[in-house]
Amino acid sequence: MSKERFEELRSQLDEVNLEILEVLNRRAELVSEIGLLKSGKGTERFDPIREKEMLDKVVGANKGPFPDDTIRHLFKQIFQASLGLQEEEKKSLLISRKNKSQDTVVQVGPLTVGGGAPVIISGPCSVETEGQMEAVASHLKGEGILLLRGGAYKPRTSPYDFQGLGKEGLKILSETAKRHGMVCVSEIVAPEDVEMACEYIDVIQIGARNMQNFELLKAAGSVRKPVLLKRGLSATIEELLYAAEYIASRGNDQIILCERGIRTYEKATRNTLDISAVPILKQETHLPVVVDVSHSTGRKDIMLPIAKAAIAVGADGLIVETHNEPAVALSDAKQQLDLQQFSTLMNQLRQSGFLKDAVQAK
Amino acid sequence: MSKERFEELRSQLDEVNLEILEVLNRRAELVSEIGLLKSGKGTERFDPIREKEMLDKVVGANKGPFPDDTIRHLFKQIFQASLGLQEEEKKSLLISRKNKSQDTVVQVGPLTVGGGAPVIISGPCSVETEGQMEAVASHLKGEGILLLRGGAYKPRTSPYDFQGLGKEGLKILSETAKRHGMVCVSEIVAPEDVEMACEYIDVIQIGARNMQNFELLKAAGSVRKPVLLKRGLSATIEELLYAAEYIASRGNDQIILCERGIRTYEKATRNTLDISAVPILKQETHLPVVVDVSHSTGRKDIMLPIAKAAIAVGADGLIVETHNEPAVALSDAKQQLDLQQFSTLMNQLRQSGFLKDAVQAK
Amino acid sequence: MSKERFEELRSQLDEVNLEILEVLNRRAELVSEIGLLKSGKGTERFDPIREKEMLDKVVGANKGPFPDDTIRHLFKQIFQASLGLQEEEKKSLLISRKNKSQDTVVQVGPLTVGGGAPVIISGPCSVETEGQMEAVASHLKGEGILLLRGGAYKPRTSPYDFQGLGKEGLKILSETAKRHGMVCVSEIVAPEDVEMACEYIDVIQIGARNMQNFELLKAAGSVRKPVLLKRGLSATIEELLYAAEYIASRGNDQIILCERGIRTYEKATRNTLDISAVPILKQETHLPVVVDVSHSTGRKDIMLPIAKAAIAVGADGLIVETHNEPAVALSDAKQQLDLQQFSTLMNQLRQSGFLKDAVQAK
Amino acid sequence: MSKERFEELRSQLDEVNLEILEVLNRRAELVSEIGLLKSGKGTERFDPIREKEMLDKVVGANKGPFPDDTIRHLFKQIFQASLGLQEEEKKSLLISRKNKSQDTVVQVGPLTVGGGAPVIISGPCSVETEGQMEAVASHLKGEGILLLRGGAYKPRTSPYDFQGLGKEGLKILSETAKRHGMVCVSEIVAPEDVEMACEYIDVIQIGARNMQNFELLKAAGSVRKPVLLKRGLSATIEELLYAAEYIASRGNDQIILCERGIRTYEKATRNTLDISAVPILKQETHLPVVVDVSHSTGRKDIMLPIAKAAIAVGADGLIVETHNEPAVALSDAKQQLDLQQFSTLMNQLRQSGFLKDAVQAK
Repeated sequence: MSKERFEELRSQLDEVNLEILEVLNRRAELVSEIGLLKSGKGTERFDPIREKEMLDKVVGANKGPFPDDTIRHLFKQIFQASLGLQEEEKKSLLISRKNKSQDTVVQVGPLTVGGGAPVIISGPCSVETEGQMEAVASHLKGEGILLLRGGAYKPRTSPYDFQGLGKEGLKILSETAKRHGMVCVSEIVAPEDVEMACEYIDVIQIGARNMQNFELLKAAGSVRKPVLLKRGLSATIEELLYAAEYIASRGNDQIILCERGIRTYEKATRNTLDISAVPILKQETHLPVVVDVSHSTGRKDIMLPIAKAAIAVGADGLIVETHNEPAVALSDAKQQLDLQQFSTLMNQLRQSGFLKDAVQAK
Repeated sequence: MSKERFEELRSQLDEVNLEILEVLNRRAELVSEIGLLKSGKGTERFDPIREKEMLDKVVGANKGPFPDDTIRHLFKQIFQASLGLQEEEKKSLLISRKNKSQDTVVQVGPLTVGGGAPVIISGPCSVETEGQMEAVASHLKGEGILLLRGGAYKPRTSPYDFQGLGKEGLKILSETAKRHGMVCVSEIVAPEDVEMACEYIDVIQIGARNMQNFELLKAAGSVRKPVLLKRGLSATIEELLYAAEYIASRGNDQIILCERGIRTYEKATRNTLDISAVPILKQETHLPVVVDVSHSTGRKDIMLPIAKAAIAVGADGLIVETHNEPAVALSDAKQQLDLQQFSTLMNQLRQSGFLKDAVQAK
Repeated sequence: MSKERFEELRSQLDEVNLEILEVLNRRAELVSEIGLLKSGKGTERFDPIREKEMLDKVVGANKGPFPDDTIRHLFKQIFQASLGLQEEEKKSLLISRKNKSQDTVVQVGPLTVGGGAPVIISGPCSVETEGQMEAVASHLKGEGILLLRGGAYKPRTSPYDFQGLGKEGLKILSETAKRHGMVCVSEIVAPEDVEMACEYIDVIQIGARNMQNFELLKAAGSVRKPVLLKRGLSATIEELLYAAEYIASRGNDQIILCERGIRTYEKATRNTLDISAVPILKQETHLPVVVDVSHSTGRKDIMLPIAKAAIAVGADGLIVETHNEPAVALSDAKQQLDLQQFSTLMNQLRQSGFLKDAVQAK
Repeated sequence: MSKERFEELRSQLDEVNLEILEVLNRRAELVSEIGLLKSGKGTERFDPIREKEMLDKVVGANKGPFPDDTIRHLFKQIFQASLGLQEEEKKSLLISRKNKSQDTVVQVGPLTVGGGAPVIISGPCSVETEGQMEAVASHLKGEGILLLRGGAYKPRTSPYDFQGLGKEGLKILSETAKRHGMVCVSEIVAPEDVEMACEYIDVIQIGARNMQNFELLKAAGSVRKPVLLKRGLSATIEELLYAAEYIASRGNDQIILCERGIRTYEKATRNTLDISAVPILKQETHLPVVVDVSHSTGRKDIMLPIAKAAIAVGADGLIVETHNEPAVALSDAKQQLDLQQFSTLMNQLRQSGFLKDAVQAK
């Protein structure tokens, strides 16, 4: 008999479920209508005072068996879902896949980043001298590399460390790249330098320490140059997406995201490369994603397998720091490859089939 | 006019909210009744197949405006809330404050831990020799300390490091404590040693590396000795609570929790003392909570302020490692206080009023 | 006989140790002399090329038994020690205790921060309206609080969240503070706003996300207003010290450091308060250190014990977020105390003796 | 003239460097001789008391310019280097590459792990019923999989969660595997179960929570079955190596290491896959290394790219959780692939060339 009662209760439960469904959707329609009226009036979509009022009424009327806390929790979920509805009627994040299913392809001079074969971005940590840049660039070009990197403004932990050559560094970088038919990328750290930098460089890099320097993000969003945005030292994937949205929301959708390792307890590597971030970012957004294999590991001895993994996981490019004389580099001496090591890395990647479609000069 | 329509919609929304409340509570009653029938039959409370069936029916009937995903999400919340209801009808965790509002006071010989003044637990990292234990214990007793610690089974990262004296160490510890009218605590690492250890020691310690060694937890739950359970190296507060529940669920509710620092990126201290864990644990559970100020920081030079903070935050006791000759200790040489430093620490705590009510021998 | 040989070898070892000592110090003298010559010429103290040459010569001459790697490692240690020597002859960090043993006392209007009793800094997360600020400030003043906080430029994860009232917010904050004879602090996020902000506020706050925004640090170092520098979300203690040095090196030594919790795996609190950072910072530097008890935990329910711990550990002040209507706050609604809760917290701190010497209006 | 003096000082520095080299090596020879005498007598190689004596003598004789602290630091480095010398004369870790340059190949029935093509280890999180195991195993065998996994002893956070079928589960797993000509692996959690388990299973798994359960490691080291050792939730690479050494030091060198993600602040994935650990482990040790792609990410939607990355980085195998009905699984329901999804994954890996050499049944 309890079996029969059991079945009866179950079928009642199914009916109640449908009742809940009906009334939830009825509520959603009301909220939509209210939202339309509000958006006409420019009222804020989220209204915490009104929400509190509604909650108080509902909880005031609650007689159980659900405790008040549970009712409060469930209604907050319902409010949020309704809000999501209003949201969706407007728009989701500009950078999200939902908003645009097709891959964004960032065009940098002759080079395309995203949607195709991986690109290699290389060069020294810091621009130091013309001779150094010439040595590196001519070697890289010989390996078919088109995108030259080099830091002119160096955000350094200590104020007494080498801070970069500044504008002079940008000029050296720019002239070297032009001489070799290459394009170039460099980090900019002050909002007011962004416009000036556009005269010299082809891609503006926003570094890990500045990922949530929102003034800088806005400045980068206001120009029409591609932006290479690095994930913060301990930024979540979600925070990186919102940082990119700051740029996109100002009108610049030429954004390249960069996974460069996160800060964890493990000290065998300089940072912990969060390889899973690459496919997650590529699912969540339509932007290209590159991996900085130098900063993420800080170890030359595992660069080859890590580069393979980054390409295998779907990265649209790699950043590899290269220096003509790493031992005497003014920054990051330990992790930069010398020119011969760089050629070896490229050869090994090519031979194992990881660069077969890579975008390179012929 | 839109203003009137707005008010009208708002009042409709309030009504719909109450409808939802009514049907949710109606559902909750059905679920309760089903739960009672089920518990009579010993059926698992959580039934994922049945849940999937219900969800499929509801989503199948959904005509919007809520998208199917949102409906699925909201119903999962409702199912979970209903489950919570069934849960509450049974019982919450044995160790939870909800289950017992009064502080548990753990009695260890002449000493009470919890519900009153803080206790000091001290002694060397490892039991090394009779002479060493005698030197430490007599000094500690002179300072009014009643609970002597000393490791006999040392879980060491390397198999080639000193592994402790084993049963011989327990004997030395036990005899030293008895000679001075003290009680003692030592870490046990193998389930089969728990019973044997009860002959020698007054409190069984389960170390950080073994916090989720569930066989050991069960063994400790099966005896009638107090257990000092240390938080795992990167255990969440919730995991620590469940680890304690493993012990309690076997019938032993004489449990002392220990915060001993967690593993983070910061290396200025050996671990990062999660001081907030103390009041959270004391809210969530009725068990006493002590702080290991030696392992959490690994630094003698900040032991005094950290000890003050631990007492101020509400800890029921402190663990302080002390050695007669720290420089030559067989383990943790850097973080153990020498006897004079220990006395200084006690004096400073007393003088600043932090130990005024501390449980100590007169 | 082997015993005799053993003793003989040991005494030879002692002699060799002294030989090493002698030659190391002889080397140190040479390096010092070279350093003096160099500093006259403005040459960089660290010369990696020269270092490489020296290493190559030494390793080239090595015949063992030490393997080349070990020799390389030992000489790098010796080079570094010699460098440290040159360093010390110049100066250590401006903010370090070594450089100045006495506590820095930051004067903010009628208030002193550091070197004495703890100060309480309070106010809402964001400045929203004049009415809100008036309600909060008059209540705080009634509790004896002199330092009013309120955010006008809000660094928010999403570009679509409330970004603060900007300059208008600074004005409201400033006027409210003046009306009540209070002083005020607010976060500035753009280097070019620092000077303007000095007209309105008494302390410039640099937030966690901007701790390594070096351009902002330099701007803050160039004015003559106290700076409240918050530790970055996952900054090390060392990085925080260097960030402060950026400010000090520009001539502004009125710096208050702020521990506000770090990012870890534990999600029971918003961040993990690194309480050990307070005494370590106070050892390493002469600057005052305050604790933000609101951001570090993100939980009102443990604010009292955490506030006690922060004072007990030696903090020079607390930051406590307070709002007249937290439930409807435009940011951080969950963690702000309402006015009554704030008074209760103050009373409890006073009654338990934790604020007996606190700096407050009478 | 200062230029000449500069050159003169530099050449003196080079000479002093060679003097230091000479005396360091002379010291090393003495230490070696002492070490030989000692090892004959069975004395502990590391003698902290003697070290302290030597340091005191040296520091007592120090007249600068090096401060005592620096001298103490440099001599500790020298002592450690000398110790390293004694060490090397004996042996390095059994599991280290230095000790054995050739890859260890673990033979499991018809299967070899390490030194060749990657193996796929698959099956459900928990052994639940014979029917379930049969459904999964026959499907896997159809895909060429030879190594079947399934948990019989489940270390669960809560004592009230499904704890596994125990010995009964091992039997079901074992019989299912035999029926299909497969071999099997299962986690053992109690030292006393290791021997019993050897009757049923072909590989003993030691889970993440037990990586530093040293008693269990010793038990696994005492049998002659391959051991699959998973990295702890927040274990360092070094700790994993030492955990493996515990097994090897007891005589069992058939060890497979497993990277399964580490605990970090990022919650987009269940754990953060530390992909760099794979090449580092393969450099440091001769043991095979596999990657658990299910536990590391906890997300089905990125399993394909992560599997590719794991193979590209050099893993010797993958662990992929598979269930015939994941939605109703008794544990880890969200991360297990269903049978069709598993086939799709295999096909995609094969088609993209990532499994061309994989060890599989024909």
